[in-house]
Amino acid sequence: MSHELGAIVDLGSNSVRLVIYQQGSQGTQQEIDNLKQTVRLSSHLGDDGRIDEAGIKVALRVLEQFCQLCRAYGVTHITGIATQAVRMAVNREEVLKRIYEATGIPFRVVSGEEEARYGYLAVVNSLAVEEGVTVDIGGGSTEITVFRGRRLVRADSIPYGAVSLTREFLRSDLPSMKDMKNLDRVIQQELDRRPWLTGLGFPVIGMGGTARSLARIHQRRRHYPLLILHGYEMWPTEVTAILDMVRSMPIAKRRNINGLSADRADIITAGLAMLDQILKRVGTSRFIISNKGLRDGVLMEQVLRIRGQELLPDTLMYSIENVHDQFGLNRDHAFHVWELADQLLTAMVKHGLVVASEEHRRWLQVAALLHDIGRAISIYNTSKHTFYLLLQIPLFGVSHRDRVMAAAIAAFKSTKQIQTYLSMYQEFFDEEDIPAIAQLGVILRLVRAFDRTETGAVTGLDLQPDGRVWKLIVKARQPLGIELDLALEWTKKCRKVFQREIRLEVDDLDRAARI
Amino acid sequence: MSHELGAIVDLGSNSVRLVIYQQGSQGTQQEIDNLKQTVRLSSHLGDDGRIDEAGIKVALRVLEQFCQLCRAYGVTHITGIATQAVRMAVNREEVLKRIYEATGIPFRVVSGEEEARYGYLAVVNSLAVEEGVTVDIGGGSTEITVFRGRRLVRADSIPYGAVSLTREFLRSDLPSMKDMKNLDRVIQQELDRRPWLTGLGFPVIGMGGTARSLARIHQRRRHYPLLILHGYEMWPTEVTAILDMVRSMPIAKRRNINGLSADRADIITAGLAMLDQILKRVGTSRFIISNKGLRDGVLMEQVLRIRGQELLPDTLMYSIENVHDQFGLNRDHAFHVWELADQLLTAMVKHGLVVASEEHRRWLQVAALLHDIGRAISIYNTSKHTFYLLLQIPLFGVSHRDRVMAAAIAAFKSTKQIQTYLSMYQEFFDEEDIPAIAQLGVILRLVRAFDRTETGAVTGLDLQPDGRVWKLIVKARQPLGIELDLALEWTKKCRKVFQREIRLEVDDLDRAARI
Repeated sequence: MSHELGAIVDLGSNSVRLVIYQQGSQGTQQEIDNLKQTVRLSSHLGDDGRIDEAGIKVALRVLEQFCQLCRAYGVTHITGIATQAVRMAVNREEVLKRIYEATGIPFRVVSGEEEARYGYLAVVNSLAVEEGVTVDIGGGSTEITVFRGRRLVRADSIPYGAVSLTREFLRSDLPSMKDMKNLDRVIQQELDRRPWLTGLGFPVIGMGGTARSLARIHQRRRHYPLLILHGYEMWPTEVTAILDMVRSMPIAKRRNINGLSADRADIITAGLAMLDQILKRVGTSRFIISNKGLRDGVLMEQVLRIRGQELLPDTLMYSIENVHDQFGLNRDHAFHVWELADQLLTAMVKHGLVVASEEHRRWLQVAALLHDIGRAISIYNTSKHTFYLLLQIPLFGVSHRDRVMAAAIAAFKSTKQIQTYLSMYQEFFDEEDIPAIAQLGVILRLVRAFDRTETGAVTGLDLQPDGRVWKLIVKARQPLGIELDLALEWTKKCRKVFQREIRLEVDDLDRAARI
Repeated sequence: MSHELGAIVDLGSNSVRLVIYQQGSQGTQQEIDNLKQTVRLSSHLGDDGRIDEAGIKVALRVLEQFCQLCRAYGVTHITGIATQAVRMAVNREEVLKRIYEATGIPFRVVSGEEEARYGYLAVVNSLAVEEGVTVDIGGGSTEITVFRGRRLVRADSIPYGAVSLTREFLRSDLPSMKDMKNLDRVIQQELDRRPWLTGLGFPVIGMGGTARSLARIHQRRRHYPLLILHGYEMWPTEVTAILDMVRSMPIAKRRNINGLSADRADIITAGLAMLDQILKRVGTSRFIISNKGLRDGVLMEQVLRIRGQELLPDTLMYSIENVHDQFGLNRDHAFHVWELADQLLTAMVKHGLVVASEEHRRWLQVAALLHDIGRAISIYNTSKHTFYLLLQIPLFGVSHRDRVMAAAIAAFKSTKQIQTYLSMYQEFFDEEDIPAIAQLGVILRLVRAFDRTETGAVTGLDLQPDGRVWKLIVKARQPLGIELDLALEWTKKCRKVFQREIRLEVDDLDRAARI
């Protein structure tokens, strides 16, 4: 498990960020550390267009600290990315030279369009969206892309961000109506120059600190039970409401807003004003938060290169591979369990024993592929740990509802138990989902029993209706023992859950004495 | 990480159990799988004293299944232990021969005294008890030991267990008063022969299925918020109350008792009657459940041999080493953080800034040594994961209260946040513990910052009272960077938590430009 460690340092206009990651086989990746320092480089851009000496010093100081941490980890390669503040600086050559001399990191200044494209790459490879508008509000610029059928159609950069807008228009503690009007006018002008945005109606995907803070504020206010930002959805009107709230508060009061970090209290108004205008221009009804942005796009570019792909064909499967890697799960076993679960579900649907939607199949798939994850914590109370972990790990391309339902199926022991587990998560399901969870849960328990030894002893499953008692045909490539004993316990539950009695019938080379 | 895998199979009178474990360096061990099948071997002991053919067949079948699982895991050595049912069997030679022929496992029949000693070994190496009486109620026998100063004083075995007592005295669904009296008389007679038990007054530590079921029933009834049996305490009168409850219920009703597994519903009454009598004989006020028993004692014997010790000198430290191994934590870093935390706490106590009891120091120690554990789940929301995991992992020699408090300190970010985390665990603390948690939490956060790079850059801490502003002297063996920036954030909290302003002063080779 001696994977290589890499790092990305992102020298932004508001903050400098470091991500240290572990590069696995087949392009899997796990973040193992990250760090952020708020540097406000764009506020060191003087009227002469130069980053001043104080700005260079503070940037150097933070970058040296990051290098210190990278050395401590034994990071073998660092990718340095600089955005708007450096991009705009007249003295950027000098700045980069001094950084290189001090740290040895060759920073690359990405253009606004490139930066936008990285955001797009992060989004389409981690969220289930076919078409959309990405908006990344940074400290000194705002990157926008449009994509259709997951393909990039347009990438652009507005040279204003939360820090620079604040600095130019919202210097007072409590902005006046006039301040806000001036701010809005500049944003309007920028958007007027991009008529291709108007009325697109696509979902808007928000990235960057402004969007994350916004989502966090919203989640805290409504006591959202998940700690997940990625894929969280808000109504555009809720964005307007939170903008109205923050702009009517003095900064000191804003610092106490639950979910907003103190070092963003001053610039949140400008960032939200930009976002609000864009949402209105696009005329969308869906606003989705992406926790993945520039850095993830840069990482994704590396992953796609390793895998020889232009886009991840299946973002969910990629994230599951990452989780398998991180938790050291047995991948063959996981996929075998899913194959058996799929066969059993298909047979049950064919014979009218269950009705399974696309959604149900997806839940079962996630649950099957990750059913063992709780064992990473302990072989006792594993079901509880599985439920906990499935609500925490990074999963792409599934909704928060999908995740809660998959967690319930993977953790299923009985209807009563799973209702207790789900009691905090009522908003994600209706009462009628409970029988489906029980059915899918029992299916998964059955097929898990069939691969209890993780050796693929059971090669296939089929179902044969036979009056009141149905036969579950178990194809095996070797005599079964423990598998049947454990499966029998779960066939007992079938009567209650499927209104059918199910009997096991083994199809192996040596079946006689076995049942 | 290619540790060897071993297994223990315990062929008991009620059930057969398999534990597969991973043997780490320095004698650490983690269980990676376990399985239990209820076989009721003692009910196959005929009047002729032989285990009948059906009994042998069912045992063979289960043992073959266990071997199948061991093979699948690549287990390299299996230790087989047989207890009362085989011990008593006239045909035990034949039984063991047939098992050996079928499975290749050479089962060792342990004497009642040996069995008792294994229980003692498991208890004194996993619970903080200096003197006590261990009671292990099995299917066919009950093992008792007395220990003082953690040393074994006596080990004995009563040839009656939950299965054999049930079979002999409680055959009817609802036992009559006469049945119960006969049962009690036999138990009394056995205890009369062991006068050394009477009036000892030591804590009684209960092991085995009866004790675990009892604790589970008790925990469910009072909605105990932890899923931990080991170290759980009950009043002896509560044992009597639960015995009275189960013996007045027909078996079908008993099966629905929350916490009692259906396959124990018939034998629980006899097991509890035995336990109840012993508690009364000993005249104890403390009854403690041990989740560790025979199998763990056998494993512990191996561990102690590897370590060249007679007893673990520090059970808590041993369990923490196990956890470090399991979660791949950086041990040097963990111990360094604890060393710094200890120095800072000691300095603060010396100068009267905090009052720290033995308890507080223990909490801080556990928290410091395991503070990074949440990162095994994710580098996001780490504090939440740390809190979760500290309530789940096996920890020896600490109370449940210790565990909850250590979890709060390790997860501490702010008083408000930690009160939210603790809201489900009110029974473990008073309001006056909260300021202590905040103080210890801030100390831990500070010293974590000092070893953020995990390189031991900070070598020592001291405190210098200096009027209103106190100096925290940071001894370093190299210039510090990120450590100080991160520590500064936490010194800000000191004013609130310690009513003192604390300023960092670095004592390194190159301190000039640093602060």
